[in-house]
Amino acid sequence: MTLTLPAAMPAIRKTQNAPGLEFCPETEIPSIGPNDVLVRVTHAGICGTDRHIYEWDRWSQSRVKMGITTGHEFVGKVHAVGEGVKSIAKGDRVSAEGHIGCGHCRQCRTGDAHICKDVSIIGIDRNGCFAQYVCIPQENIWPVHPLIPDRFAAIFDPFGNAVHTAMAAGVSNRNVLITGVGIIGLMAVSVSKAAGANKIIVTDMDQNRLELAKQLGAHEALMATEPDLVQQIKNIAGNDGPEVLLEMSGHPVAISQGLESLQNGSTAALLGIPPDNISIDITNAVIFKGTTVLGINGRRMFETWYQMEQFLLAGMDLDPIITHQIPMEEFESGFQKMQSGEAIKVVLEMPDSD
Amino acid sequence: MTLTLPAAMPAIRKTQNAPGLEFCPETEIPSIGPNDVLVRVTHAGICGTDRHIYEWDRWSQSRVKMGITTGHEFVGKVHAVGEGVKSIAKGDRVSAEGHIGCGHCRQCRTGDAHICKDVSIIGIDRNGCFAQYVCIPQENIWPVHPLIPDRFAAIFDPFGNAVHTAMAAGVSNRNVLITGVGIIGLMAVSVSKAAGANKIIVTDMDQNRLELAKQLGAHEALMATEPDLVQQIKNIAGNDGPEVLLEMSGHPVAISQGLESLQNGSTAALLGIPPDNISIDITNAVIFKGTTVLGINGRRMFETWYQMEQFLLAGMDLDPIITHQIPMEEFESGFQKMQSGEAIKVVLEMPDSD
Amino acid sequence: MTLTLPAAMPAIRKTQNAPGLEFCPETEIPSIGPNDVLVRVTHAGICGTDRHIYEWDRWSQSRVKMGITTGHEFVGKVHAVGEGVKSIAKGDRVSAEGHIGCGHCRQCRTGDAHICKDVSIIGIDRNGCFAQYVCIPQENIWPVHPLIPDRFAAIFDPFGNAVHTAMAAGVSNRNVLITGVGIIGLMAVSVSKAAGANKIIVTDMDQNRLELAKQLGAHEALMATEPDLVQQIKNIAGNDGPEVLLEMSGHPVAISQGLESLQNGSTAALLGIPPDNISIDITNAVIFKGTTVLGINGRRMFETWYQMEQFLLAGMDLDPIITHQIPMEEFESGFQKMQSGEAIKVVLEMPDSD
Amino acid sequence: MTLTLPAAMPAIRKTQNAPGLEFCPETEIPSIGPNDVLVRVTHAGICGTDRHIYEWDRWSQSRVKMGITTGHEFVGKVHAVGEGVKSIAKGDRVSAEGHIGCGHCRQCRTGDAHICKDVSIIGIDRNGCFAQYVCIPQENIWPVHPLIPDRFAAIFDPFGNAVHTAMAAGVSNRNVLITGVGIIGLMAVSVSKAAGANKIIVTDMDQNRLELAKQLGAHEALMATEPDLVQQIKNIAGNDGPEVLLEMSGHPVAISQGLESLQNGSTAALLGIPPDNISIDITNAVIFKGTTVLGINGRRMFETWYQMEQFLLAGMDLDPIITHQIPMEEFESGFQKMQSGEAIKVVLEMPDSD
Repeated sequence: MTLTLPAAMPAIRKTQNAPGLEFCPETEIPSIGPNDVLVRVTHAGICGTDRHIYEWDRWSQSRVKMGITTGHEFVGKVHAVGEGVKSIAKGDRVSAEGHIGCGHCRQCRTGDAHICKDVSIIGIDRNGCFAQYVCIPQENIWPVHPLIPDRFAAIFDPFGNAVHTAMAAGVSNRNVLITGVGIIGLMAVSVSKAAGANKIIVTDMDQNRLELAKQLGAHEALMATEPDLVQQIKNIAGNDGPEVLLEMSGHPVAISQGLESLQNGSTAALLGIPPDNISIDITNAVIFKGTTVLGINGRRMFETWYQMEQFLLAGMDLDPIITHQIPMEEFESGFQKMQSGEAIKVVLEMPDSD
Repeated sequence: MTLTLPAAMPAIRKTQNAPGLEFCPETEIPSIGPNDVLVRVTHAGICGTDRHIYEWDRWSQSRVKMGITTGHEFVGKVHAVGEGVKSIAKGDRVSAEGHIGCGHCRQCRTGDAHICKDVSIIGIDRNGCFAQYVCIPQENIWPVHPLIPDRFAAIFDPFGNAVHTAMAAGVSNRNVLITGVGIIGLMAVSVSKAAGANKIIVTDMDQNRLELAKQLGAHEALMATEPDLVQQIKNIAGNDGPEVLLEMSGHPVAISQGLESLQNGSTAALLGIPPDNISIDITNAVIFKGTTVLGINGRRMFETWYQMEQFLLAGMDLDPIITHQIPMEEFESGFQKMQSGEAIKVVLEMPDSD
Repeated sequence: MTLTLPAAMPAIRKTQNAPGLEFCPETEIPSIGPNDVLVRVTHAGICGTDRHIYEWDRWSQSRVKMGITTGHEFVGKVHAVGEGVKSIAKGDRVSAEGHIGCGHCRQCRTGDAHICKDVSIIGIDRNGCFAQYVCIPQENIWPVHPLIPDRFAAIFDPFGNAVHTAMAAGVSNRNVLITGVGIIGLMAVSVSKAAGANKIIVTDMDQNRLELAKQLGAHEALMATEPDLVQQIKNIAGNDGPEVLLEMSGHPVAISQGLESLQNGSTAALLGIPPDNISIDITNAVIFKGTTVLGINGRRMFETWYQMEQFLLAGMDLDPIITHQIPMEEFESGFQKMQSGEAIKVVLEMPDSD
Repeated sequence: MTLTLPAAMPAIRKTQNAPGLEFCPETEIPSIGPNDVLVRVTHAGICGTDRHIYEWDRWSQSRVKMGITTGHEFVGKVHAVGEGVKSIAKGDRVSAEGHIGCGHCRQCRTGDAHICKDVSIIGIDRNGCFAQYVCIPQENIWPVHPLIPDRFAAIFDPFGNAVHTAMAAGVSNRNVLITGVGIIGLMAVSVSKAAGANKIIVTDMDQNRLELAKQLGAHEALMATEPDLVQQIKNIAGNDGPEVLLEMSGHPVAISQGLESLQNGSTAALLGIPPDNISIDITNAVIFKGTTVLGINGRRMFETWYQMEQFLLAGMDLDPIITHQIPMEEFESGFQKMQSGEAIKVVLEMPDSD
């Protein structure tokens, strides 16, 4: 296959051991191996993780490879494929799972590649999608259904976190508490509603997000600072509390209060990442109550992706969460709008290379 | 039905707000309601919980009702039944589930009575079985299979903890780590082996218990103080660690190391009760690894009891764990032998009232 | 407790070894034991099973006890309770699970009383609810939430069949095929929709029922006689067929076509009862496809009942299915309207005895 | 990579539309693509399916490609790998999953490739392993643990059927009925025992196989022609019958009697393939009893393979089932010994090409 590629491409990179990201107008276009797919990126979402890298927090400093092209949520068109690639062809519209497993460990070979201990994540461990082209192994490519618009396909990654969390916990016909309604928490409201949840109760510290959660289908939205928060949640849910917790904040108090709110025999799915060890009353919050706690990471490959497709084809609307679509070059304003709280999800539009 | 009862009965009671228990030779024989069963106790096990009450620790002081008859593990013979009692008759040999649910909450009505939030436990919240007679609601009575000896039937309660924990986690064809081999941890070795576990690895601080665990079928028994304990466990299990943790110690370090030892996507069943909040690296130990954590309490009513019956009929031997059988009156020596480590499980023999 | 009861009560009974049922104006009022509840029935649903008894088919002749009071779906008020009854009091509005387990077998003691092999069913094996009073063991009583109207509470029994079938199969985010939209099949449409099903496809031989199924939320409703029915179902569902079959017809062709329509790895929940053995291509329909087939009977006690309560409190409307409410004395016209297809669900109103 | 290959290789092929197979001494050595692995076969098992092809029954005539090299169970050494192959190198000792999925359907992408509807099976749809070399896609290669002997590694395929069936049903602490103790049924006895089954009861028509089943750990082995077979099974199991059926015969009577023997609420895993439609009393055998029926096909990729490795490393002995090891050229005698019942599992030894 002949690759008609420009000589160089723009990419947004982490070039300094300091806050910020750099727009590099002329970087090398990735080369591909026999099982790789070269995708011309058309749209990419800015993730909370990208913001951590932008702000250069402790985690980013310890984990992110200097010089790397950031970004891991995207949609694009296949530009070229390696000779071992089957079932994917130039011109296909695709997204991709950004967790690249080692391929030969037990987790990778039994449907749990999302928790491969040697996982390599695009935009963190290897070059990502804030660029005109990105190289992806064929096993990670996801063909996008023609009825799904680009801006939704660009954010399969966080949407998949919400879907994985809700479906792993099992929300159908259950009262669900969602602690934290950032981007993923808000999506979890829509997912829980579509997946058949009974009452959806959300908590957060941001009044605007709480309002939006109610618009998306939450039965009740409570400020996390409310006195008697746990008792209020129990009263709203009835039967001595919700049966499901979707923890989306990573905040130690939210985790404790979430577990405390549940009725006995419930399920708590934890997605939010606390920055440090947390102190937890495991005796009363987990053991005596017979609680099941699920650690949730990434998206199931590819069960979660089929679930996402079904939700979107059935009409789920992510537009209330996608507040901004801006050209790639204006990424700085995207990060700033996320920091100020003005933006929820920002989608970057890549320069047209057709 | 005419009750041919003595005028009074001996009972071991908590009579002082201080360490110790009192042998009361003449206490009132319990009266029974229409759905109750009066059981003449023949054998009763001393539980770690009884030892807490004997030693009068903080938990006991806050929970145990003063004046109560202690003890919750027993076997005996039915002496009388209320007029609403079906399927149980005078003379039946029975044990009983000591967790008495409220009977009308969701948990009680859906097979989860063991985690009823208003549970009342014999020997803690109401009079127990360290006495010649005990009153038990008919729903809690368990008819004992004729092939099961009294001394085994007397300790269904802790045996059920071990069975519930192992069966909830699912040990068949899996490598299992058991942290803490006290009475229940030792039973969990036998149960895991019979339930089809692959390698069983145990940790503890007591060399004698570790030896006994190996005799009962543990593949490897490690001092919890070993350097590189986590790495050793991973090496023994292979595949980057065991797939199941049965946490029986309640010790914060054991919980942390246990979770750290597991391979990704594993199940941790927590039965041991830490005395306080614990500090836990939930991000790395649970969330990123995709771990499922099960809080385990009591025994499932009565799935666990049927499982126990099957294990015992198939030949499981609890005798290596029952180190002492002594007359009820000598209970003080039983507690002391448990404190010194000389005894593992002590079974009390009640005075014959036939 | 003083029972202020009339001397006799009306009841609808099977008095002849021939088609038909008899309205008996003066029958004996049931006496109650220590664990029983005497309920004054206010509303009762006519079930398809009652119609079998009315028409006196082969099954009815082999199973139903002559002279019995029929009926097993009802709501009413507690008139009296035995002395062993806790948590239920005179005046409570209640319905009841009509499957009365033996109480002491493994199934009864492990949350599977609905499949007790010695189950006794009201209106079939013992006197039922087509009467002014019915006697029910306390364990079978279900307190009705004040926000649920009588006519819905009167039909918990078939509604529970629909809920049990859908929830056992797991419909959330799945494409669901329902074969047969009689009373329970129609309810299964509403339940699947509320429980988060993706596309709901139904088949039947009755055009009116198909129309109603669409009004209740079915995505597509197909005449079972359509040529290429299986291929049509596969096309509508996509991904090579639905992931769930709820079989509500008991018709051998529907069962075969339903299984054939499913994609590999699916779940088929069978509730409809074929009158005889069926011939099935188990190799291709079940084994090679890796299908899971669930036999469904009754309702889980009481998980299904809590699920029903949640669905109804969340606003599920059963009124499109309840086409007729008539006085008890006019039961003949109820059966006839069901036979003609004019009626779907008929609810009888019992004479006021307050 | 330079391939030092002979000019041709021997292979056992289906060359005539009639019973029999042909030993072809000089066939073309397979060429490999970028993701393929060329394996020099050292040992291969003769499967019941191979015998069907040898005998050229109706199924074989309709399915098997004329001219094909037969055989699908093997172990060997990697001779060459395509340029896209990772983690597998020349000299590795490997076996392989013979079900080759399409790689892009939902089943293939969600851990269910064994039930891909477009599956291609080596030795049936494409050239198999009764040859000196076989070409296998890298995803299907299974590296063999050094402690597992060749003759065991050669029969992972049927062993995996037994493991998949038993583990899908869940045998730990349950009474298990195995109907049919051919090769896979016998392995299922060993697997059930190691996986923690309680009583294992087997039925068959062959007294020698029944004897062997008892030697392998069956509690009771019954001739399928025994009068009152179902009642005998129920009596042996107790609690009104076994909780698990592993159906390994494909015989309609065994399927019916197996389902009838189970207690209510049980699980039946069906692996044996009936040659035609079967007549089944689905009402009484499945629906009223609340039975779960699992269609079982192939082996889970690669969960089952990890389970096999664990069982073998824990000491499971397949030697009582491997009755004959013969040179490849003597395959005719192998088939004949299987036909006569003299042999159970026959392993072919391929000519040394090192």
